[in-house]
Amino acid sequence: MSTETAKATAEIRELVDHWLKAVLAMDIDGIVSHYAPDILAFDAVSQLQFKGVNAYRKHWEACLSMCPRGTMIFEIHDLNIRAGSDLAFATALNRCGGTGENGEEKAGWMRMTVCYRKTNGRWIVVHEHFSAPFDMESLKVLDLKP
Amino acid sequence: MSTETAKATAEIRELVDHWLKAVLAMDIDGIVSHYAPDILAFDAVSQLQFKGVNAYRKHWEACLSMCPRGTMIFEIHDLNIRAGSDLAFATALNRCGGTGENGEEKAGWMRMTVCYRKTNGRWIVVHEHFSAPFDMESLKVLDLKP
Repeated sequence: MSTETAKATAEIRELVDHWLKAVLAMDIDGIVSHYAPDILAFDAVSQLQFKGVNAYRKHWEACLSMCPRGTMIFEIHDLNIRAGSDLAFATALNRCGGTGENGEEKAGWMRMTVCYRKTNGRWIVVHEHFSAPFDMESLKVLDLKP
Repeated sequence: MSTETAKATAEIRELVDHWLKAVLAMDIDGIVSHYAPDILAFDAVSQLQFKGVNAYRKHWEACLSMCPRGTMIFEIHDLNIRAGSDLAFATALNRCGGTGENGEEKAGWMRMTVCYRKTNGRWIVVHEHFSAPFDMESLKVLDLKP
């Protein structure tokens, strides 16, 4: 790995970490600060796609509003980053869910792909894709563990 | 867009077209020829992830075996490509399904993200992510149209 690639990879790793902290803090401005104005997002729920940061922000707000503060489970595992001079992408598995009032965790595993573009020396997210695989017979989300 | 970026974008567009033709022809060697040995694939069905081209090839074979020849519906819409000097990614919506014996089409909309790396002057797919969004209440795949 070249010095430049190693530097870019470290920058992306830091951004993912920063973004995760914002998600767990339910800090909508912090989350959205990572996104390009023209982001195209494929989220795991609700709609086929979200075009632009305003539409995606509204979706994030709706999702966060369903999660009582301090109960969210959102983990990033197996983070893999490939960074070039002007584009980069990261893949990971996510354990997502929440802790119920009885303290019981209810969480499932998902997949995440995040694509970045470097603009004016800064990496921004131009595409995000979250999903869970489904069963072809029942068309229900599969409860799978890595 | 620079000349180099335009050239890379055209190259990726051609690869997506070539790959799509292989999918529709159920040409497993043609499909797999686009993939890096260490591809990481998040497919819409069956498993959380497929690591490496051998595992992913087996999954493709299983999927294709469920589809009688000539009945497959697989379309690419809204293809968007970003290409850099050494990495590129493409996003699209897919209309996927099959035509039944009575001629009736049964198809749904999915999302696709494909990430490429340039190695020895050739673009290869290092990551693929296919999915359909689900409903948070029923955990069933949503039948959505763009």
